[in-house]
Amino acid sequence: MPVRLDEIVARFGGDLAGDGSTPIEGVGTLEGAGPGQLSFLANPKYRHLLHTTRAVAVILAPDAAADCSCARIVTSQPYLYFARVAAWLRPQPRPSQGIHPSAIVESAIPADVSVGANVWIGPDVVIADGVVVEANCVIGAGCEIGAGSWLYPNVTVYYGCRIGERAIIHAGAVIGSDGFGFARESDGSWVKIPQTGRVVIGNDVEIGANTSIDRGALDDTVIEDGVKLDNQIQVAHNVHIGTHTAIAGCVGIAGSARIGRRCTIGGAAGIQGHLTIADDVNVSTDTLVAKSILRAGTYTGTVPFLEHGEWLRNFARLRHLDAMADKIRALETRLAELEKKS
Amino acid sequence: MPVRLDEIVARFGGDLAGDGSTPIEGVGTLEGAGPGQLSFLANPKYRHLLHTTRAVAVILAPDAAADCSCARIVTSQPYLYFARVAAWLRPQPRPSQGIHPSAIVESAIPADVSVGANVWIGPDVVIADGVVVEANCVIGAGCEIGAGSWLYPNVTVYYGCRIGERAIIHAGAVIGSDGFGFARESDGSWVKIPQTGRVVIGNDVEIGANTSIDRGALDDTVIEDGVKLDNQIQVAHNVHIGTHTAIAGCVGIAGSARIGRRCTIGGAAGIQGHLTIADDVNVSTDTLVAKSILRAGTYTGTVPFLEHGEWLRNFARLRHLDAMADKIRALETRLAELEKKS
Amino acid sequence: MPVRLDEIVARFGGDLAGDGSTPIEGVGTLEGAGPGQLSFLANPKYRHLLHTTRAVAVILAPDAAADCSCARIVTSQPYLYFARVAAWLRPQPRPSQGIHPSAIVESAIPADVSVGANVWIGPDVVIADGVVVEANCVIGAGCEIGAGSWLYPNVTVYYGCRIGERAIIHAGAVIGSDGFGFARESDGSWVKIPQTGRVVIGNDVEIGANTSIDRGALDDTVIEDGVKLDNQIQVAHNVHIGTHTAIAGCVGIAGSARIGRRCTIGGAAGIQGHLTIADDVNVSTDTLVAKSILRAGTYTGTVPFLEHGEWLRNFARLRHLDAMADKIRALETRLAELEKKS
Repeated sequence: MPVRLDEIVARFGGDLAGDGSTPIEGVGTLEGAGPGQLSFLANPKYRHLLHTTRAVAVILAPDAAADCSCARIVTSQPYLYFARVAAWLRPQPRPSQGIHPSAIVESAIPADVSVGANVWIGPDVVIADGVVVEANCVIGAGCEIGAGSWLYPNVTVYYGCRIGERAIIHAGAVIGSDGFGFARESDGSWVKIPQTGRVVIGNDVEIGANTSIDRGALDDTVIEDGVKLDNQIQVAHNVHIGTHTAIAGCVGIAGSARIGRRCTIGGAAGIQGHLTIADDVNVSTDTLVAKSILRAGTYTGTVPFLEHGEWLRNFARLRHLDAMADKIRALETRLAELEKKS
Repeated sequence: MPVRLDEIVARFGGDLAGDGSTPIEGVGTLEGAGPGQLSFLANPKYRHLLHTTRAVAVILAPDAAADCSCARIVTSQPYLYFARVAAWLRPQPRPSQGIHPSAIVESAIPADVSVGANVWIGPDVVIADGVVVEANCVIGAGCEIGAGSWLYPNVTVYYGCRIGERAIIHAGAVIGSDGFGFARESDGSWVKIPQTGRVVIGNDVEIGANTSIDRGALDDTVIEDGVKLDNQIQVAHNVHIGTHTAIAGCVGIAGSARIGRRCTIGGAAGIQGHLTIADDVNVSTDTLVAKSILRAGTYTGTVPFLEHGEWLRNFARLRHLDAMADKIRALETRLAELEKKS
Repeated sequence: MPVRLDEIVARFGGDLAGDGSTPIEGVGTLEGAGPGQLSFLANPKYRHLLHTTRAVAVILAPDAAADCSCARIVTSQPYLYFARVAAWLRPQPRPSQGIHPSAIVESAIPADVSVGANVWIGPDVVIADGVVVEANCVIGAGCEIGAGSWLYPNVTVYYGCRIGERAIIHAGAVIGSDGFGFARESDGSWVKIPQTGRVVIGNDVEIGANTSIDRGALDDTVIEDGVKLDNQIQVAHNVHIGTHTAIAGCVGIAGSARIGRRCTIGGAAGIQGHLTIADDVNVSTDTLVAKSILRAGTYTGTVPFLEHGEWLRNFARLRHLDAMADKIRALETRLAELEKKS
């Protein structure tokens, strides 16, 4: 059932321009929106699409408002505004409450929890109100899962781990597997160090598909409130990730790394073990953080790509950079000698 | 039951040399083949193995045919020929048809579909003829899966996604998880953008083990016909991958990237978001594509590895490349000055 | 129930200093240990913690023994000693024996095997004594699993694979998926090469969460005894990994690579296909091995990260390294000319 544009403004604020009675049935991109849809302009690069969009209304910043002939909501933060409206217009439909007959649940759980087909929940598990555990998830003995959390299918949570409220954990994620800890014998073989810590996850954390988070060796692996982890991330044992830090896909974080609050880590970046990253640090895509970063800022270590032949010519030189530097120094000495004479 | 070599030639073409009545029981590498096996030579590097192979017949190109004393099939494309013969000689055995009693299937499906143990198939799912869904897969409400597709165990397909005909999806793959989309509050916390698009996958697509493909934010994530994705790949929301593009393992593709047709992307490469890659582009292993590639060709951005001490000496210079360039310029100026005087 | 410190020394050796009757209830880090806990000092960087630890006893090397006022076990290899004691003090609790009623087991298995909820074990599977198969695992037809192996939840083993004794396989791991093998048609489409080899895994191998190991194309993919693989690793078809090699998270190994014995491969490193790595090679984190390594040693190919502005200034030069080398050569020639004249 559509809502009126002015209802949205009454609820979320912003300045309305145009017909407040416009009915809004959903949201869409400027390019993809059809009749009845509300769109938004967050990236100035797409401003020209305001002229051609079929959206009936657009959320945008004051400086772009004049470019739009349809109804609009003017706000200083159009993307954030859009996020709130979209979530309100389209709440995720919840699976029905109760335990599917094929699920095996060895702990007492609240009546409003939804447990899907073929789930196994072990003994001594504490699950709070409103949790959704989708099909084929496995939750080991002694885990705790906070109110309103949602586990998508095929998630594994090992014994003894703790997940806060309103977590969203996507399919294939593994929480609490053993950290990679071994001591080496003199013959080169490895003796496993028992991994007896837990994974402790705060509130409002999202964890992407096929991401894995190892339990601590002795102390815990800790993910603080509001952390967002994308897909295919590896979090090793005893890592600590601070509040509101967001980490893009394919990142690997080695053991005992300590990442600050409100950081952003770009896709496929790597964080080496036993180092510290300060609050408010941005690590660029594909950058290897090989030593601690003690000051807020943006840090990068990526290499440009080139057409293959050009790459061959230029990057082969990397093996001889030291020799190049020596040659420059030698030239400087010889030139100074000549300059003295002349 | 063996086939005769001349039956193979009758079916797949090529020129037969040697005894056409040779019985062929299977295929093998030049090194590993035993009696009764047919082998192939595709890479000239292995040509010397023709002298020692125990294969009873070999598929090879005209220029290598003279090196082989056993029976042979001569063709301009030995690897392609081998692929066809191998698939014909060894069709994958299909699990028995019907629904395993432990599976929970909430939609009507054709009689010739095979559904394994502990599978959950939600409501409003459309599954075409001959599909195989192996044990512990989860297929969400409203999905469509085309004829002849095969899902290996523990695959998760989120609600509303669409998979074409003859797909092969390996264990642990996740299709349709939420894209990583958040707007930021002024305090650094994140507001989730509902991810309401789908994943739409064409015909003849293969998806590797533990690969994840996120659903679109508003519009769909699209994988066109014939695309081959290896293991451990991350495909973010609203990515578009063109027909017959093949992507090796551990690649990460960020949101809204648009990859052309017939591209090849090497292992562990990264594709940044909101960029375009033209048709027929080859991206080398481990290369980060940080801007659009508008022309067909091969592009590379990898760094050579060195013995550790040599690496230390050379790569420390990367921090001073700009200073080195300045020194060269200063030398040029001073030298020109001297040359004028002399 | 606690053990006495002198019981530990009687069992594992080392020199006891202090009160041998000290009761030990568990192990902990120097920082995290509480009363009743035994700790260890392996990394000299943490030596100052000896003064503040609340551990009742510490395992340490002779040179650090004097810094510790509590009871201590002095040994030349404190980390290895700790590994052995920790495993002895805290054996992993085994799930109860027998087959969960919800599991589907189509092969005969020993009475002391533990099979969890919703597991599927296919026909012709050989499982040895004491194996643990946790909830929602899938083991395909014809597999063999050696005595004492432990599969955590949601592991998939494809048909025909072989796993040795005492393996530990973490959740979400996939063993035996098809290798990524295709021959290309002239129109750019791909013909699948049937992957008919197996994965053969030796004894005492550990495989991390969400790691995938492809079956061989024709011959097998082989993981020798004692190999340790961390999380999120990709092992392609026909790879061979030698005894006691340890590989950190997010590594990708391309097809037919052959890695020697007792190697260590750092996180997110890449190994290209069809190459050889000798025994006792250490590959650094994030290093791409693009050609064979024939001698033991440490090899590195990573790039330093910089503050973003500094990175821009320096790394843009990578595109012009060849030109820089040319300029140096030109300067040398001109300078030699001048020197001759002067």
